[in-house]
Amino acid sequence: MIQYPTKKKTSDQKGISTRNRGMSLEHDLNLTNEYYRIHELANVHKKPTPIQVVAVSYPSRNQAKIVEAYYKTPSTTDYNGVTQGVYFDFEAKEVTDQQRFSLQRIHQHQIDHLRDIVKHKGCAFLIIRFVKHDVTFYVPFEKFDQEMKSTQRRSIPLTWFQSECAIIQHGFAPPLHYLPHVHQWIKETYEK
Amino acid sequence: MIQYPTKKKTSDQKGISTRNRGMSLEHDLNLTNEYYRIHELANVHKKPTPIQVVAVSYPSRNQAKIVEAYYKTPSTTDYNGVTQGVYFDFEAKEVTDQQRFSLQRIHQHQIDHLRDIVKHKGCAFLIIRFVKHDVTFYVPFEKFDQEMKSTQRRSIPLTWFQSECAIIQHGFAPPLHYLPHVHQWIKETYEK
Repeated sequence: MIQYPTKKKTSDQKGISTRNRGMSLEHDLNLTNEYYRIHELANVHKKPTPIQVVAVSYPSRNQAKIVEAYYKTPSTTDYNGVTQGVYFDFEAKEVTDQQRFSLQRIHQHQIDHLRDIVKHKGCAFLIIRFVKHDVTFYVPFEKFDQEMKSTQRRSIPLTWFQSECAIIQHGFAPPLHYLPHVHQWIKETYEK
Repeated sequence: MIQYPTKKKTSDQKGISTRNRGMSLEHDLNLTNEYYRIHELANVHKKPTPIQVVAVSYPSRNQAKIVEAYYKTPSTTDYNGVTQGVYFDFEAKEVTDQQRFSLQRIHQHQIDHLRDIVKHKGCAFLIIRFVKHDVTFYVPFEKFDQEMKSTQRRSIPLTWFQSECAIIQHGFAPPLHYLPHVHQWIKETYEK
């Protein structure tokens, strides 16, 4: 998830808190993915933030220094990878609101991307953490998409996640062991 | 001294020619992947180049302008995607040498990455174009890796590609239809 630092003045306060908020889930996921790589459970990477480079200077022969560039809106999700040959793809979001997940938090082209992954029989999901409750959900995208389409609201309440989604256990190593849910999905999808 | 303009010229030429070389295969692949998305054959994306952002300025309230950043060495390949539920992952290289592909062209961590994909039963390959012959090979990574391990040389000759690898047909839409080779791999790997 990319929190673009936009407004400078507000951003000093807001920016920092947003970054911290974003960091802990991202940090947990980075450690978890590293753990998966080392233990040969999955290969999954966070995609780099797309940046439009406008100007580059060469302060020395071997160094390219980018001196003008802008953040681009990502057209895909942040993470994708492979386990048991199967492609999986997810977006991770932290929520500070205690009661609901605002649908504005997900870009339309990320939704389109995840729908496309489902079409190609990949495993698409969201990892959503309600920070104030310190609870993290594994949200199958098919379910989430159905709920999005059927609801009239612009948000999905915490209660929906509690009744429809599995909780990812927080731990030490790995900090956020989401992979069993992916394996469960693979089992249900491919071994029927 | 009159050496300065000479120096400048070389670097300008060098920069441009390298960029052009890289462009045409990349351009073909971008169009091909776009075609695959539109026609719902696969979902595959080129990963953004990883960039380390050092300093950002805010010329206006809504705009973040990156004013100091550096290219990072990518730890993965350039492309990955999904078709028929299966994860695939590849690196694309253009070769100007007429007779051989230099192994220095591939980073060690890209090799490690592709080996890891193979371990997880994903489809890993290279797309290598010999520009002067206008021929593009689909190179299964398992085969390539075996050859790399067994050879004493620091390059792999064109003749090896000609005898061991399939040629990807150049076309109009899509310009570089590599997907049948991926489907063939899936068939051979999963339908045994």
